[in-house]
Amino acid sequence: MKVEIINIGDELLIGQVVNTNASWMAEQLNLAGYKVHQVTIVSDEREHILEALSLAEKRVQIVLISGGIGPTKDDITKHTLCEFFQTRLVMNEEAYRDVERLFARRGYPVTELNRQQAMMPESATSIPNLLGTARGMWFEKKTASPLPTVFVSMPGVPFEMKAMITEEIIPRLNQIFNTPVILHRTILTQGVGESFLAAQIEAWENNLPSHIKLAYLPQPGIVRLRLTGTGNDESTLSAQVTTQVTALRQIIPDYIYGYDNDTLEEITGRLLLENKNTLATAESCTGGYIAHLITSVPGSSAYFRGSVVCYANEVKEQIVGVLPETLAKYGAVSEQAVTEMALGVQSRLKADFVIATSGIAGPDGATAGKPVGTTWIAIATPAGVSAHAFLFGDSRERNIRRTALQALNLLRKQLLSYFFLSPFGILK
Amino acid sequence: MKVEIINIGDELLIGQVVNTNASWMAEQLNLAGYKVHQVTIVSDEREHILEALSLAEKRVQIVLISGGIGPTKDDITKHTLCEFFQTRLVMNEEAYRDVERLFARRGYPVTELNRQQAMMPESATSIPNLLGTARGMWFEKKTASPLPTVFVSMPGVPFEMKAMITEEIIPRLNQIFNTPVILHRTILTQGVGESFLAAQIEAWENNLPSHIKLAYLPQPGIVRLRLTGTGNDESTLSAQVTTQVTALRQIIPDYIYGYDNDTLEEITGRLLLENKNTLATAESCTGGYIAHLITSVPGSSAYFRGSVVCYANEVKEQIVGVLPETLAKYGAVSEQAVTEMALGVQSRLKADFVIATSGIAGPDGATAGKPVGTTWIAIATPAGVSAHAFLFGDSRERNIRRTALQALNLLRKQLLSYFFLSPFGILK
Repeated sequence: MKVEIINIGDELLIGQVVNTNASWMAEQLNLAGYKVHQVTIVSDEREHILEALSLAEKRVQIVLISGGIGPTKDDITKHTLCEFFQTRLVMNEEAYRDVERLFARRGYPVTELNRQQAMMPESATSIPNLLGTARGMWFEKKTASPLPTVFVSMPGVPFEMKAMITEEIIPRLNQIFNTPVILHRTILTQGVGESFLAAQIEAWENNLPSHIKLAYLPQPGIVRLRLTGTGNDESTLSAQVTTQVTALRQIIPDYIYGYDNDTLEEITGRLLLENKNTLATAESCTGGYIAHLITSVPGSSAYFRGSVVCYANEVKEQIVGVLPETLAKYGAVSEQAVTEMALGVQSRLKADFVIATSGIAGPDGATAGKPVGTTWIAIATPAGVSAHAFLFGDSRERNIRRTALQALNLLRKQLLSYFFLSPFGILK
Repeated sequence: MKVEIINIGDELLIGQVVNTNASWMAEQLNLAGYKVHQVTIVSDEREHILEALSLAEKRVQIVLISGGIGPTKDDITKHTLCEFFQTRLVMNEEAYRDVERLFARRGYPVTELNRQQAMMPESATSIPNLLGTARGMWFEKKTASPLPTVFVSMPGVPFEMKAMITEEIIPRLNQIFNTPVILHRTILTQGVGESFLAAQIEAWENNLPSHIKLAYLPQPGIVRLRLTGTGNDESTLSAQVTTQVTALRQIIPDYIYGYDNDTLEEITGRLLLENKNTLATAESCTGGYIAHLITSVPGSSAYFRGSVVCYANEVKEQIVGVLPETLAKYGAVSEQAVTEMALGVQSRLKADFVIATSGIAGPDGATAGKPVGTTWIAIATPAGVSAHAFLFGDSRERNIRRTALQALNLLRKQLLSYFFLSPFGILK
């Protein structure tokens, strides 16, 4: 079933706003079994909107329109939709009560502008907006086929649009267009590049049944594997997808750290919290980025003690306790130094587990035998300490990111083996 | 002069890739005096591309096409363009030498697929690609007016596209369409919200000459003010824009921290480097984010000593030297605690300047009289220490970001007054 997305708004045409709405909508629609045929961005002009609607109607069966339905004067979408569908605006009592309720909760009076937001096209079904004052509008136009062409207008404000797509629009489309059951499972891997990963799972991938598709979604330091299954019965399909995920875990147990929207900072945080253990970091090349990721998680103060970002060697010695002889003999980017950093912060910050990093993030700092990207990571646990060497790339920004993700994944594995769980213990 | 952007690529229609190309192109074109009328994303299908080209030709005078000219089989743009312009592919010797040179540099042999990239439509002018193997194609179609309709096809790879737009396409368009001189200057402000800023500069804004326009570009913690001047003579226009910027500086000297692409971490880093002074941070609520921003700047190891992220009160006491009495009497989020954090890290990490932060980032942690968003920032200098209180908002992520930017701007001001420069000293 083909869809066209029409985004209305001058702010998109002067480059002030990136059209993340379209890509988010496209992803959700695609995951729900609809094919986005075209995305069209038009200005807040009557003729331009009318032209886009007419052309879209010829191309697709579903037209999703976002933007241009706020209360300000330049938002002319609603009037233009009335013109296109030859209908008129009438007061929608339900919509008006919504606006009243929202304003009462915020303690504002309802203005004339807001009252006008409750005026809706007579021939449209109005769609609730749980997070704002502008309701969606659902129009159906008869066609030669038994199924109508559907036009839905919704707000351009991303969180309002997202709630409306997920809660209202996709379920209603599914009722009309009777789409097959589609299930997705994303497997998150860390520590392996896309091509090397593809080579390792080639046989598994080739043996996937034809109704289960695989997509590689690489990001710096992470590769996400998305399985999409299509079928008629949800529980059968779910079991089939799970079988494939289980098989994949046997092949690459070391790389998989989680599923769907998991993050390494949340997974490791949960493990620490459940086991009442604490964490600290000793960061040289990552410069506080790992501490920042950890403390981005709400509630992290329950397990995170703190970090020493020891950029200067003197700070490594005096605050962390790295021996001057170690730095003189092996340098700061060495197994010995990173091990002492981990142990020093473990005892001084009184943490159960410690991540330590030391590397050459670049662009400067390379020495003989230690090119830019050379990185040491140590993990201290109550049972001991281990250090690991990596050679990342040339980009400072990516080296910091990759080091942080690699370090958090090493921590995750250490947490699992320390708490005597199998590596599969926390996997859903 | 109206432009349509056509982005070709299935990856944009399944939501795998956000269309940042279109917003970047739109911004550059808008800044150069061209109006983007529509953005259209189409699939890698011949009929769809042909339809989009025909429709665009009716709407605009300039059609910019990105994507679909790589070496792989699904990239059919080039063949479709030949069909649309009724021409054929011929070997372009200059393009072939480019491909050979690029591959020699990378040490790869030229494959048949790459050789085909040097085949170009006979009626097109080929546009150099400084950063890749796929050249751009420039077509002109006569119209009833003296000016042609211009179609340009370019790569979808962002950095290749950007170089081509800036270096080749906009200058060539300017030759044909004889656009006026347009100048931009962005003034960066921190520490003031958009509406409050607008009220303060209202008189100045109302007095701007009609050929100089102002745009507000707000981001969390920062508001950018972009002045766009249009005229015939570059040096006259430049002087006029500078006059307005100078006038603005008199009105809001405290909020302006830089211009155009400046960042607070780079500005403060430059000041420290030039004056051979050092910096450290003592971070509670920002959790290492300020250290991360500072160390994102290449070369920051020359002035950044390090940071103590003291999430646990025990770390504030034992590593930083905050007195237990202070924490007991005033709490960690207090003028007294943040001042002791700054002074403690200054002496222990032997830094000339220190930023210290302590606040309630949320969502938990609020106490009587200290709601979520309550934040203290202290700046220690060789001459003393000062502490400042702020009440930010409800969002943890934004509170961390706003605290970091506010702290770096306070540091910037302290650096300027310590080095005996006027606050305008570093402004270009």
